[in-house]
Amino acid sequence: MGNSELWKNCIGPISKLIEEAAFTFTPEGVGMKAMDPSRVALVNFELSADGFDSYDIEGKRILGMNLEEMSKFFSRAKKSDELIFSFQEGENRLVLTFKGTSIRKFTLPLIEIEEKELPEPELEFTASAKVLAGMIKDGLKDASLVTDKVRFELLDEYFLMTTESDTGSAEMKLPVGSEGLQELKVDEAARAMYNIGYLDDIINVASSNDIIEVHLGTDLPLQLDFSLAGGKGRLRFLLAPRIEAE
Amino acid sequence: MGNSELWKNCIGPISKLIEEAAFTFTPEGVGMKAMDPSRVALVNFELSADGFDSYDIEGKRILGMNLEEMSKFFSRAKKSDELIFSFQEGENRLVLTFKGTSIRKFTLPLIEIEEKELPEPELEFTASAKVLAGMIKDGLKDASLVTDKVRFELLDEYFLMTTESDTGSAEMKLPVGSEGLQELKVDEAARAMYNIGYLDDIINVASSNDIIEVHLGTDLPLQLDFSLAGGKGRLRFLLAPRIEAE
Amino acid sequence: MGNSELWKNCIGPISKLIEEAAFTFTPEGVGMKAMDPSRVALVNFELSADGFDSYDIEGKRILGMNLEEMSKFFSRAKKSDELIFSFQEGENRLVLTFKGTSIRKFTLPLIEIEEKELPEPELEFTASAKVLAGMIKDGLKDASLVTDKVRFELLDEYFLMTTESDTGSAEMKLPVGSEGLQELKVDEAARAMYNIGYLDDIINVASSNDIIEVHLGTDLPLQLDFSLAGGKGRLRFLLAPRIEAE
Repeated sequence: MGNSELWKNCIGPISKLIEEAAFTFTPEGVGMKAMDPSRVALVNFELSADGFDSYDIEGKRILGMNLEEMSKFFSRAKKSDELIFSFQEGENRLVLTFKGTSIRKFTLPLIEIEEKELPEPELEFTASAKVLAGMIKDGLKDASLVTDKVRFELLDEYFLMTTESDTGSAEMKLPVGSEGLQELKVDEAARAMYNIGYLDDIINVASSNDIIEVHLGTDLPLQLDFSLAGGKGRLRFLLAPRIEAE
Repeated sequence: MGNSELWKNCIGPISKLIEEAAFTFTPEGVGMKAMDPSRVALVNFELSADGFDSYDIEGKRILGMNLEEMSKFFSRAKKSDELIFSFQEGENRLVLTFKGTSIRKFTLPLIEIEEKELPEPELEFTASAKVLAGMIKDGLKDASLVTDKVRFELLDEYFLMTTESDTGSAEMKLPVGSEGLQELKVDEAARAMYNIGYLDDIINVASSNDIIEVHLGTDLPLQLDFSLAGGKGRLRFLLAPRIEAE
Repeated sequence: MGNSELWKNCIGPISKLIEEAAFTFTPEGVGMKAMDPSRVALVNFELSADGFDSYDIEGKRILGMNLEEMSKFFSRAKKSDELIFSFQEGENRLVLTFKGTSIRKFTLPLIEIEEKELPEPELEFTASAKVLAGMIKDGLKDASLVTDKVRFELLDEYFLMTTESDTGSAEMKLPVGSEGLQELKVDEAARAMYNIGYLDDIINVASSNDIIEVHLGTDLPLQLDFSLAGGKGRLRFLLAPRIEAE
């Protein structure tokens, strides 16, 4: 009932940050919300029922999964494979079927996920942009040559990623009108610093030509929104800022 | 007098299993038969004289070779290189010449190979199949995510590779009629379990689109036959089964 | 004002051999000459002003750079990026700007380089050749399977790279007339042995289809000349010979 590439491309990067997560299947679709162990990053994944070729769930079912194990199996999907999720009442496992030239089946044991209160921060972002993922990937790799953190900045005319250290500095600038910056809305200029490591993991959800929505407020968490399945799903990523030592 | 790709693709994988082997050159062609050090796997390589562009051997000559060294040199062959084997009476070395834009020559010292009695098992296989190598590669990679052994099974309607452990299960199924399964003959359904490690090494002899002949009998060794040089040669691989703990 | 690929392809390999170097910018162009720490290899890089799209230097300016840091930034250049070097009087840093879809800026701190007397050997080479870089790359990889040194030899009819050890031998031969050997001038046949490690590092300046000028004299240093920017620049590499134990 699904799209093997979408799951492969999402669960792989998420599994680098988050070990275990609960997926909630309802007739409307599937959702997953989880934080990394250090509670610096929050991932919110949603895919509506019409993001699947066929979808047949009655009631609500919560499946606790080890994301690393799940990701290993998804990594074996081929582009042309049809992906089928299935689980039976009473059975303590998920069955993944990849239909291509051969029919391949994987089963994964379900796990108990302790319900944790996840923060639902109400964030007053003052600026947002739609940016080609490739530009952000460049900015992250550039910055990682200099240090382990990067500053995001949204100004009236620019999207900026900058960093500096004793060994030099790096700056990636997208001016309004660049094909890398498809939209820029700035009520108030915003800037904040973030860990590169978390961003490096999650950015791989997107291909270089995908558009990422960036939401920013000075010293607020960073919100990145990735559209999935042509708008039928969304991955939201929230990352706590680092305090800048000035 | 030879085909550099064929030797590169065969000796590389074989050298992962077997350190030293004796090649027997006769006017009819060349053969090599050897077991791995733990005597779990047997490799039998044959290439007839007409599998070479030209071939000129008088009498019988046995050349003991270190396969790892030999493989390092073959790995340097380019697709378009013409490969020439040569050895002189009285000289204790093999000369490999690769003719392309440049002329490259390697010499390898011959080694003494102790003659070992190799088992010539008479195996009563009850089922066989012709399978696309890519399907078996998939089945091995899938299974290796779960554990270190894989079950081969030939049934009336299917070729199956399966495995299971505490962390889940994997199954690769080719039904009759699939383009991945070109022939299936089952006198009696057969199944047996094998180590993935040995199979991973030897399967690289084949490209994904090559056809492999699989011969199976319940709890018997597995026999895989790879056709070489358009049928002018053959690599046979025999692998002892693992006892299944039930 | 420059060509990002040229700098990326030169500084990367050089930085494997030489940690720090001084670049001298004058109105005529830029030059750099440095030896590796063990003083076995000398690198001489020159690029004339017309090897840049635009070039605007007054007087003479010497910039000491950590080549490894510099190379990390150049490695981030894309083929289509326009590269701009800039430095201000009084500022102790170099600014590199890559202009593509985004505008990326890196700054590197300048460093003090101790002036060392560099040898200016007057070498009486007796033979020279113009060779496809790919042939030399092959010869180096072949030889490295056998041992850590390789003999260069220029004879009336051939360019040869050879080596031997207890585990075998390797030889790469280019006859006159081969497309891999574009010119051969031999006043006196010449041969000498060199460390493969240094050659492996520096050969990566060239693509396989580039032409390298080889200058050789028996037991003299090896001189390799790489043409840059269509002849507007040159990288010269001098490597001390190893004494052959006969």
